[in-house]
Amino acid sequence: MIGYPNRKKPNSTVSSLHTHTGRGMSLERDLNDSNEYYKESGRALIHKKPTPIQVVKVDYPQRSAAKITEAYYKTPSTTDYNGIYRGRAVDFEAKETKSTTSFPFKSIHPHQIAHLEQVLQHGGIGFLILRFTSFNETYMVDAKRMIDLYHDKSRKSISYTAVKKHGSLIKESFTPRLCYLDNVDELYFKEEH
Amino acid sequence: MIGYPNRKKPNSTVSSLHTHTGRGMSLERDLNDSNEYYKESGRALIHKKPTPIQVVKVDYPQRSAAKITEAYYKTPSTTDYNGIYRGRAVDFEAKETKSTTSFPFKSIHPHQIAHLEQVLQHGGIGFLILRFTSFNETYMVDAKRMIDLYHDKSRKSISYTAVKKHGSLIKESFTPRLCYLDNVDELYFKEEH
Repeated sequence: MIGYPNRKKPNSTVSSLHTHTGRGMSLERDLNDSNEYYKESGRALIHKKPTPIQVVKVDYPQRSAAKITEAYYKTPSTTDYNGIYRGRAVDFEAKETKSTTSFPFKSIHPHQIAHLEQVLQHGGIGFLILRFTSFNETYMVDAKRMIDLYHDKSRKSISYTAVKKHGSLIKESFTPRLCYLDNVDELYFKEEH
Repeated sequence: MIGYPNRKKPNSTVSSLHTHTGRGMSLERDLNDSNEYYKESGRALIHKKPTPIQVVKVDYPQRSAAKITEAYYKTPSTTDYNGIYRGRAVDFEAKETKSTTSFPFKSIHPHQIAHLEQVLQHGGIGFLILRFTSFNETYMVDAKRMIDLYHDKSRKSISYTAVKKHGSLIKESFTPRLCYLDNVDELYFKEEH
Protein backbone atom coordinates (compact mmCIF):
# COMPACT_ATOMS: atom_id res chain seq x y z
CA MET A 1 0.00 0.00 0.00
CA ILE A 2 2.87 2.32 0.73
CA GLY A 3 5.29 2.59 -2.17
CA TYR A 4 9.04 2.48 -2.11
CA PRO A 5 10.61 5.88 -1.62
CA ASN A 6 12.27 7.02 -4.79
CA ARG A 7 14.58 9.94 -4.42
CA LYS A 8 16.77 9.31 -7.44
CA LYS A 9 17.14 12.10 -9.92
CA PRO A 10 15.42 11.40 -13.23
CA ASN A 11 17.91 10.58 -15.95
CA SER A 12 17.38 11.26 -19.62
CA THR A 13 16.16 7.76 -20.40
CA VAL A 14 13.49 8.00 -17.75
CA SER A 15 12.56 11.50 -18.90
CA SER A 16 12.02 10.39 -22.47
CA LEU A 17 9.87 7.53 -21.23
CA HIS A 18 7.71 10.07 -19.43
CA THR A 19 6.68 11.60 -22.72
CA HIS A 20 5.29 8.35 -23.98
CA THR A 21 3.93 6.73 -20.88
CA GLY A 22 2.78 9.66 -18.80
CA ARG A 23 -0.48 7.96 -18.00
CA GLY A 24 1.22 5.05 -16.30
CA MET A 25 3.26 7.19 -13.96
CA SER A 26 2.49 7.60 -10.31
CA LEU A 27 1.49 10.87 -8.75
CA GLU A 28 4.43 10.66 -6.37
CA ARG A 29 6.89 10.38 -9.24
CA ASP A 30 5.25 13.29 -11.07
CA LEU A 31 5.44 15.45 -7.96
CA ASN A 32 9.05 14.52 -7.22
CA ASP A 33 10.03 15.38 -10.80
CA SER A 34 8.10 18.65 -10.64
CA ASN A 35 9.68 19.57 -7.30
CA GLU A 36 13.12 18.80 -8.70
CA TYR A 37 12.39 21.10 -11.65
CA TYR A 38 11.03 23.84 -9.39
CA LYS A 39 14.12 23.54 -7.19
CA GLU A 40 16.60 23.62 -10.10
CA SER A 41 14.85 26.61 -11.65
CA GLY A 42 14.86 28.41 -8.28
CA ARG A 43 11.09 28.82 -8.14
CA ALA A 44 10.42 26.87 -4.95
CA LEU A 45 12.02 24.52 -2.43
CA ILE A 46 9.61 21.66 -1.84
CA HIS A 47 10.49 18.06 -0.91
CA LYS A 48 8.73 14.84 -0.21
CA LYS A 49 9.52 13.64 3.28
CA PRO A 50 11.02 10.17 3.56
CA THR A 51 8.55 7.39 4.34
CA PRO A 52 8.59 6.83 8.11
CA ILE A 53 10.01 3.42 8.95
CA GLN A 54 10.46 1.77 12.35
CA VAL A 55 13.80 0.02 12.35
CA VAL A 56 13.94 -3.07 14.58
CA LYS A 57 17.15 -4.89 13.64
CA VAL A 58 20.35 -3.70 12.00
CA ASP A 59 23.35 -5.78 10.96
CA TYR A 60 26.76 -4.20 10.78
CA PRO A 61 28.71 -6.39 8.35
CA GLN A 62 32.45 -5.65 8.33
CA ARG A 63 33.56 -3.10 5.71
CA SER A 64 30.00 -2.59 4.48
CA ALA A 65 27.14 -0.25 5.14
CA ALA A 66 24.77 -1.00 7.99
CA LYS A 67 22.08 -3.38 6.74
CA ILE A 68 18.58 -3.11 8.15
CA THR A 69 17.15 -6.62 8.41
CA GLU A 70 13.85 -5.97 10.17
CA ALA A 71 11.74 -2.86 9.86
CA TYR A 72 8.12 -1.82 9.42
CA TYR A 73 6.26 1.01 7.74
CA LYS A 74 4.79 3.48 10.23
CA THR A 75 1.69 5.63 10.00
CA PRO A 76 2.81 9.11 8.99
CA SER A 77 2.10 11.83 11.56
CA THR A 78 2.35 14.67 9.06
CA THR A 79 1.71 15.20 5.37
CA ASP A 80 4.18 13.94 2.78
CA TYR A 81 5.28 17.20 1.18
CA ASN A 82 6.44 20.54 2.50
CA GLY A 83 8.73 23.42 1.72
CA ILE A 84 8.91 27.10 0.90
CA TYR A 85 7.34 29.07 -1.93
CA ARG A 86 7.40 32.85 -2.33
CA GLY A 87 8.54 33.14 1.28
CA ARG A 88 5.59 31.12 2.60
CA ALA A 89 5.59 27.70 4.20
CA VAL A 90 3.77 25.22 1.95
CA ASP A 91 2.47 21.86 3.17
CA PHE A 92 0.38 19.29 1.37
CA GLU A 93 -0.67 15.69 1.00
CA ALA A 94 -1.08 13.94 -2.35
CA LYS A 95 -3.41 11.03 -3.03
CA GLU A 96 -4.69 9.17 -6.03
CA THR A 97 -7.85 7.15 -6.49
CA LYS A 98 -9.10 4.80 -9.20
CA SER A 99 -12.69 5.71 -8.35
CA THR A 100 -14.64 7.65 -10.97
CA THR A 101 -17.15 9.01 -8.46
CA SER A 102 -15.44 10.10 -5.25
CA PHE A 103 -12.34 10.25 -3.09
CA PRO A 104 -12.83 8.37 0.22
CA PHE A 105 -11.72 10.27 3.34
CA LYS A 106 -10.47 7.05 4.91
CA SER A 107 -7.48 7.38 2.56
CA ILE A 108 -6.28 10.31 4.66
CA HIS A 109 -5.02 9.63 8.18
CA PRO A 110 -6.71 11.71 10.94
CA HIS A 111 -3.16 12.77 11.96
CA GLN A 112 -2.71 14.32 8.55
CA ILE A 113 -5.98 16.27 8.81
CA ALA A 114 -4.96 17.57 12.24
CA HIS A 115 -1.55 18.46 10.84
CA LEU A 116 -3.07 20.48 7.97
CA GLU A 117 -5.30 22.31 10.46
CA GLN A 118 -2.19 23.31 12.39
CA VAL A 119 -0.41 24.40 9.21
CA LEU A 120 -3.25 26.85 8.57
CA GLN A 121 -3.23 28.05 12.21
CA HIS A 122 0.47 28.85 11.90
CA GLY A 123 0.06 30.81 8.69
CA GLY A 124 1.19 28.19 6.20
CA ILE A 125 -0.39 27.36 2.85
CA GLY A 126 -2.03 23.93 3.00
CA PHE A 127 -3.80 21.85 0.39
CA LEU A 128 -4.48 18.40 -0.95
CA ILE A 129 -3.48 17.19 -4.40
CA LEU A 130 -5.96 14.63 -5.64
CA ARG A 131 -5.59 12.54 -8.79
CA PHE A 132 -8.46 10.67 -10.36
CA THR A 133 -6.39 8.15 -12.29
CA SER A 134 -9.36 6.97 -14.38
CA PHE A 135 -9.69 10.44 -15.87
CA ASN A 136 -5.99 11.27 -15.64
CA GLU A 137 -7.00 14.50 -13.91
CA THR A 138 -5.20 16.02 -10.95
CA TYR A 139 -6.80 18.66 -8.73
CA MET A 140 -5.68 20.96 -5.96
CA VAL A 141 -8.17 21.34 -3.11
CA ASP A 142 -7.57 24.02 -0.45
CA ALA A 143 -6.99 22.47 3.00
CA LYS A 144 -9.62 24.62 4.73
CA ARG A 145 -12.31 23.52 2.29
CA MET A 146 -11.25 19.90 2.49
CA ILE A 147 -11.16 19.96 6.32
CA ASP A 148 -14.68 21.48 6.44
CA LEU A 149 -15.97 18.67 4.25
CA TYR A 150 -14.06 16.08 6.32
CA HIS A 151 -15.64 17.28 9.57
CA ASP A 152 -19.13 17.15 8.06
CA LYS A 153 -20.19 13.88 9.75
CA SER A 154 -22.65 13.00 7.00
CA ARG A 155 -19.82 12.61 4.49
CA LYS A 156 -17.38 9.77 4.12
CA SER A 157 -15.93 10.98 0.87
CA ILE A 158 -15.64 13.96 -1.39
CA SER A 159 -17.40 13.44 -4.72
CA TYR A 160 -15.66 13.90 -8.04
CA THR A 161 -18.25 16.60 -8.81
CA ALA A 162 -17.35 18.46 -5.59
CA VAL A 163 -13.63 18.18 -6.37
CA LYS A 164 -14.29 19.68 -9.83
CA LYS A 165 -16.38 22.43 -8.25
CA HIS A 166 -14.22 23.32 -5.22
CA GLY A 167 -10.84 22.27 -6.57
CA SER A 168 -8.61 23.65 -9.24
CA LEU A 169 -7.44 21.47 -12.15
CA ILE A 170 -3.64 21.20 -12.34
CA LYS A 171 -2.17 21.61 -15.80
CA GLU A 172 0.40 19.08 -17.02
CA SER A 173 3.43 19.74 -19.17
CA PHE A 174 6.77 18.18 -20.08
CA THR A 175 8.59 20.10 -17.34
CA PRO A 176 7.26 20.41 -14.78
CA ARG A 177 5.05 17.35 -15.11
CA LEU A 178 2.49 19.01 -12.83
CA CYS A 179 2.36 22.82 -12.96
CA TYR A 180 0.87 22.92 -9.48
CA LEU A 181 2.59 26.12 -8.38
CA ASP A 182 0.48 27.97 -10.97
CA ASN A 183 -2.55 26.80 -8.98
CA VAL A 184 -0.90 27.99 -5.77
CA ASP A 185 -0.35 31.41 -7.39
CA GLU A 186 -4.00 31.54 -8.40
CA LEU A 187 -5.39 30.32 -5.06
CA TYR A 188 -3.10 31.99 -2.55
CA PHE A 189 -1.36 34.94 -4.16
CA LYS A 190 -4.09 36.28 -6.43
CA GLU A 191 -4.32 39.67 -4.72
CA GLU A 192 -0.70 40.27 -5.61
CA HIS A 193 -1.12 39.87 -9.37
CA MET B 1 26.20 6.50 13.00
CA ILE B 2 22.64 7.33 12.15
CA GLY B 3 20.30 6.74 15.06
CA TYR B 4 16.99 4.95 15.09
CA PRO B 5 14.09 7.26 14.39
CA ASN B 6 12.02 7.69 17.51
CA ARG B 7 8.67 9.31 16.97
CA LYS B 8 6.89 7.93 20.02
CA LYS B 9 5.25 10.45 22.27
CA PRO B 10 6.98 10.78 25.60
CA ASN B 11 4.96 9.16 28.37
CA SER B 12 5.04 10.23 31.98
CA THR B 13 7.63 7.64 33.01
CA VAL B 14 9.99 8.82 30.33
CA SER B 15 9.33 12.45 31.22
CA SER B 16 10.20 11.91 34.86
CA LEU B 17 13.39 10.17 33.81
CA HIS B 18 14.33 13.29 31.86
CA THR B 19 14.52 15.28 35.03
CA HIS B 20 17.13 13.01 36.51
CA THR B 21 19.15 11.98 33.52
CA GLY B 22 18.91 15.01 31.27
CA ARG B 23 22.61 15.02 30.60
CA GLY B 24 22.56 11.56 29.09
CA MET B 25 19.85 12.40 26.58
CA SER B 26 20.50 12.88 22.95
CA LEU B 27 20.04 16.15 21.16
CA GLU B 28 17.51 14.53 18.84
CA ARG B 29 15.39 13.38 21.76
CA ASP B 30 15.56 16.81 23.38
CA LEU B 31 14.50 18.49 20.13
CA ASN B 32 11.68 16.03 19.52
CA ASP B 33 10.36 16.60 23.04
CA SER B 34 10.68 20.37 22.64
CA ASN B 35 8.91 20.29 19.28
CA GLU B 36 6.12 18.19 20.78
CA TYR B 37 5.73 20.76 23.55
CA TYR B 38 5.79 23.67 21.12
CA LYS B 39 3.18 21.90 18.98
CA GLU B 40 0.88 21.09 21.90
CA SER B 41 1.12 24.64 23.24
CA GLY B 42 0.36 26.03 19.77
CA ARG B 43 3.58 28.03 19.55
CA ALA B 44 5.09 26.38 16.47
CA LEU B 45 4.71 23.41 14.15
CA ILE B 46 8.13 21.85 13.70
CA HIS B 47 8.92 18.19 13.02
CA LYS B 48 11.92 16.01 12.50
CA LYS B 49 11.78 14.36 9.09
CA PRO B 50 11.93 10.57 9.07
CA THR B 51 15.40 9.11 8.43
CA PRO B 52 15.65 8.34 4.71
CA ILE B 53 15.86 4.60 4.12
CA GLN B 54 16.22 2.72 0.84
CA VAL B 55 13.97 -0.32 1.00
CA VAL B 56 15.21 -3.29 -1.03
CA LYS B 57 13.11 -6.27 0.08
CA VAL B 58 9.70 -6.49 1.69
CA ASP B 59 7.88 -9.61 2.90
CA TYR B 60 4.10 -9.64 3.05
CA PRO B 61 3.25 -12.30 5.64
CA GLN B 62 -0.43 -13.26 5.68
CA ARG B 63 -2.55 -11.29 8.16
CA SER B 64 0.43 -9.20 9.26
CA ALA B 65 1.97 -5.90 8.39
CA ALA B 66 4.49 -5.74 5.56
CA LYS B 67 7.92 -6.62 6.93
CA ILE B 68 10.98 -4.93 5.46
CA THR B 69 13.80 -7.49 5.40
CA GLU B 70 16.51 -5.58 3.56
CA ALA B 71 17.05 -1.84 3.63
CA TYR B 72 19.86 0.70 3.95
CA TYR B 73 20.26 4.15 5.41
CA LYS B 74 20.56 6.84 2.74
CA THR B 75 22.41 10.14 2.82
CA PRO B 76 19.89 12.85 3.61
CA SER B 77 19.36 15.44 0.85
CA THR B 78 17.85 18.04 3.17
CA THR B 79 18.16 19.03 6.80
CA ASP B 80 16.45 16.99 9.50
CA TYR B 81 14.01 19.54 10.91
CA ASN B 82 11.54 21.95 9.39
CA GLY B 83 8.22 23.59 10.01
CA ILE B 84 6.42 26.87 10.59
CA TYR B 85 6.93 29.51 13.28
CA ARG B 86 5.23 32.91 13.42
CA GLY B 87 4.14 32.44 9.82
CA ARG B 88 7.68 31.81 8.59
CA ALA B 89 9.20 28.63 7.22
CA VAL B 90 11.88 27.34 9.59
CA ASP B 91 14.54 24.81 8.58
CA PHE B 92 17.52 23.54 10.53
CA GLU B 93 20.03 20.80 11.11
CA ALA B 94 21.11 19.60 14.55
CA LYS B 95 24.46 18.05 15.39
CA GLU B 96 26.38 17.13 18.48
CA THR B 97 30.10 16.71 19.02
CA LYS B 98 32.22 15.35 21.87
CA SER B 99 35.06 17.66 20.90
CA THR B 100 35.94 20.43 23.36
CA THR B 101 37.65 22.58 20.74
CA SER B 102 35.67 22.60 17.49
CA PHE B 103 32.84 21.25 15.36
CA PRO B 104 34.15 19.56 12.17
CA PHE B 105 32.36 20.59 8.96
CA LYS B 106 32.67 17.05 7.62
CA SER B 107 29.80 16.20 9.99
CA ILE B 108 27.46 18.18 7.72
CA HIS B 109 26.70 16.79 4.26
CA PRO B 110 27.35 19.20 1.36
CA HIS B 111 23.70 18.55 0.32
CA GLN B 112 22.57 19.97 3.62
CA ILE B 113 24.66 23.13 3.20
CA ALA B 114 23.22 23.61 -0.30
CA HIS B 115 19.75 23.03 1.09
CA LEU B 116 20.20 25.68 3.80
CA GLU B 117 21.45 28.16 1.17
CA GLN B 118 18.24 27.57 -0.78
CA VAL B 119 16.12 27.95 2.35
CA LEU B 120 17.60 31.45 2.77
CA GLN B 121 17.10 32.27 -0.93
CA HIS B 122 13.42 31.39 -0.63
CA GLY B 123 12.89 33.53 2.45
CA GLY B 124 12.98 30.86 5.12
CA ILE B 125 14.71 31.02 8.50
CA GLY B 126 17.68 28.64 8.55
CA PHE B 127 20.14 27.73 11.27
CA LEU B 128 22.26 25.01 12.81
CA ILE B 129 21.81 23.70 16.34
CA LEU B 130 25.16 22.56 17.72
CA ARG B 131 25.67 20.73 20.98
CA PHE B 132 29.05 20.40 22.65
CA THR B 133 28.25 17.36 24.77
CA SER B 134 31.43 17.73 26.90
CA PHE B 135 30.18 21.09 28.14
CA ASN B 136 26.50 20.20 27.91
CA GLU B 137 26.03 23.44 25.97
CA THR B 138 23.79 23.82 22.93
CA TYR B 139 24.10 26.75 20.53
CA MET B 140 22.14 28.16 17.62
CA VAL B 141 24.25 29.40 14.71
CA ASP B 142 22.59 31.37 11.91
CA ALA B 143 22.79 29.51 8.57
CA LYS B 144 24.24 32.47 6.65
CA ARG B 145 27.09 32.81 9.13
CA MET B 146 27.74 29.07 9.19
CA ILE B 147 27.70 28.85 5.35
CA ASP B 148 30.19 31.74 5.08
CA LEU B 149 32.55 29.92 7.45
CA TYR B 150 31.99 26.64 5.57
CA HIS B 151 32.94 28.20 2.22
CA ASP B 152 36.11 29.69 3.69
CA LYS B 153 38.50 27.11 2.20
CA SER B 154 41.05 27.55 4.97
CA ARG B 155 38.66 26.14 7.54
CA LYS B 156 37.70 22.55 8.13
CA SER B 157 35.81 23.21 11.30
CA ILE B 158 34.22 25.90 13.39
CA SER B 159 35.98 26.42 16.70
CA TYR B 160 34.17 26.29 20.02
CA THR B 161 35.30 29.89 20.56
CA ALA B 162 33.73 30.96 17.24
CA VAL B 163 30.50 29.16 18.11
CA LYS B 164 30.38 30.99 21.44
CA LYS B 165 31.09 34.28 19.65
CA HIS B 166 28.81 33.94 16.61
CA GLY B 167 26.19 31.62 18.07
CA SER B 168 23.55 32.04 20.68
CA LEU B 169 23.40 29.76 23.74
CA ILE B 170 20.10 27.87 24.00
CA LYS B 171 18.54 27.83 27.45
CA GLU B 172 17.31 24.52 28.87
CA SER B 173 14.26 23.93 31.01
CA PHE B 174 11.92 21.13 32.07
CA THR B 175 9.49 21.88 29.22
CA PRO B 176 10.60 22.59 26.63
CA ARG B 177 13.92 20.83 27.14
CA LEU B 178 15.54 23.28 24.72
CA CYS B 179 13.99 26.76 24.60
CA TYR B 180 15.33 27.29 21.11
CA LEU B 181 12.40 29.35 19.83
CA ASP B 182 13.46 32.10 22.26
CA ASN B 183 16.74 32.24 20.31
CA VAL B 184 14.77 32.37 17.04
CA ASP B 185 12.78 35.31 18.44
CA GLU B 186 15.98 37.07 19.39
CA LEU B 187 17.83 36.37 16.13
CA TYR B 188 15.07 36.72 13.51
CA PHE B 189 12.19 38.72 14.97
CA LYS B 190 14.04 41.26 17.09
CA GLU B 191 12.80 44.31 15.14
CA GLU B 192 9.27 43.31 16.08
CA HIS B 193 9.82 43.38 19.86
